[in-house]
Amino acid sequence: MPDKPLIFVTNDDGYLSEGIRLLENILRPLGRVVVVAPQKEMSGQSHSITVGKPLKLTCIRKEEFFEEYALEGTPVDCVKMAFDKVLHRKPDFLFAGINHGSNVSINTIYSGTMAAVMEGCSEGVPSVGFSLCNDDKKSNMNFCLPFAEKIAKDVIANSLPEDVCLNVNFPDGEIKGIRVGHQAKGYWSEDFKVSEKEGEKSIFWLGGEYNCMDSSPEADWNIIYKDYASIVPMQVDFTAYKVLNSMKERFENKN
Amino acid sequence: MPDKPLIFVTNDDGYLSEGIRLLENILRPLGRVVVVAPQKEMSGQSHSITVGKPLKLTCIRKEEFFEEYALEGTPVDCVKMAFDKVLHRKPDFLFAGINHGSNVSINTIYSGTMAAVMEGCSEGVPSVGFSLCNDDKKSNMNFCLPFAEKIAKDVIANSLPEDVCLNVNFPDGEIKGIRVGHQAKGYWSEDFKVSEKEGEKSIFWLGGEYNCMDSSPEADWNIIYKDYASIVPMQVDFTAYKVLNSMKERFENKN
Repeated sequence: MPDKPLIFVTNDDGYLSEGIRLLENILRPLGRVVVVAPQKEMSGQSHSITVGKPLKLTCIRKEEFFEEYALEGTPVDCVKMAFDKVLHRKPDFLFAGINHGSNVSINTIYSGTMAAVMEGCSEGVPSVGFSLCNDDKKSNMNFCLPFAEKIAKDVIANSLPEDVCLNVNFPDGEIKGIRVGHQAKGYWSEDFKVSEKEGEKSIFWLGGEYNCMDSSPEADWNIIYKDYASIVPMQVDFTAYKVLNSMKERFENKN
Repeated sequence: MPDKPLIFVTNDDGYLSEGIRLLENILRPLGRVVVVAPQKEMSGQSHSITVGKPLKLTCIRKEEFFEEYALEGTPVDCVKMAFDKVLHRKPDFLFAGINHGSNVSINTIYSGTMAAVMEGCSEGVPSVGFSLCNDDKKSNMNFCLPFAEKIAKDVIANSLPEDVCLNVNFPDGEIKGIRVGHQAKGYWSEDFKVSEKEGEKSIFWLGGEYNCMDSSPEADWNIIYKDYASIVPMQVDFTAYKVLNSMKERFENKN
């Protein structure tokens, strides 16, 4: 079957997570699937890469049309390693997840899952990230599988616009349908917990609370709140084009 | 002087780097400066945060209108820690750098310096990152200081548009002036070096080569190439608005 598409799969919860198993099950009937996922959990690792330290790759399974590897590295390391040393080419598609935890709104900027998707997108690969809005690693994901399968089949059949990837989030419970929207404006306010002191050093644990600043019904946070799956098309160009001209007037010296 | 603005400074090269010293020197005449920077180098750490591990904070210096702290964490940890436990409020301005190494084009997505800037921006703080396009930690930065000072003074006097931060890069050498542009389209192609094997594990070192895909004279990569300092206004909303309507037609089930 030379027409089987080459589908690359990764995540940030690690190669042993339930979410990546379920995603593999959806994708294996749709092409040749190669998984390179972190050896251990890498949530909150964003787009970090491993510089100045070696990366260790272990082959877990190798079957016809299915291979699985674990990498002692970040999700973006997994993407780069896979393209260069496992696939020896760019895959036809990249899917990441299913992430245990929400990647709506500003969460996408901290997410290793969405960083892998953005990395694929930056290298020209149609890429999709799936997340369930429930942090519990043992939470039931079965109810979102028909939606993930439908979206995956659509992307494999019709690809994606150039330089665009998808951030797909599922509400935790019955899903009323799919809505396409934008990344909700919002932020995490910090709330560190102080613990002991260690000589001169103060010791803190990161905590925080999400603040939604976006009342639009098309904001992904609000789509999830209404029990719909949200799809946000994303790009890796962070330029604020709306202020480009005013910033030119302000900062350029025309001499 | 109750009117002195509260200026927060961080970086990803660590609190001992030359670049942050030079930035402090520029900013100290302009307000009350508080530095919280990583204890050790955190390049390539992007927007990663430290979850499930404690963060250790050490006070290095405390003078009138100037404080310096080192944190055993990432640049984004430094921002969050500073806002919550050092400043006990949001600062009036955030400056990051001066980074030893280019943050033009796709580099911004891997950069800890720009992640700190994006974090400040997401929390509503006018934020600016400075980088010199030379990876050598000992490279001369003096020639870019007048430009950094000019931009810093402008931002402190006039602030920035809502939800917009600045990514400022300096070419390595004589600077012809300032140009405002967009994040160049481009990517790093992987080129891992294989070293020894360790039992079942293959060992690799990350390497790569930058590929510029953007011929526009307004792309930051090309601005730097022409020996101008580049300013790219950036936002933390990654939504690809240009395809929002076509994606709605494609994925929404209207029932």
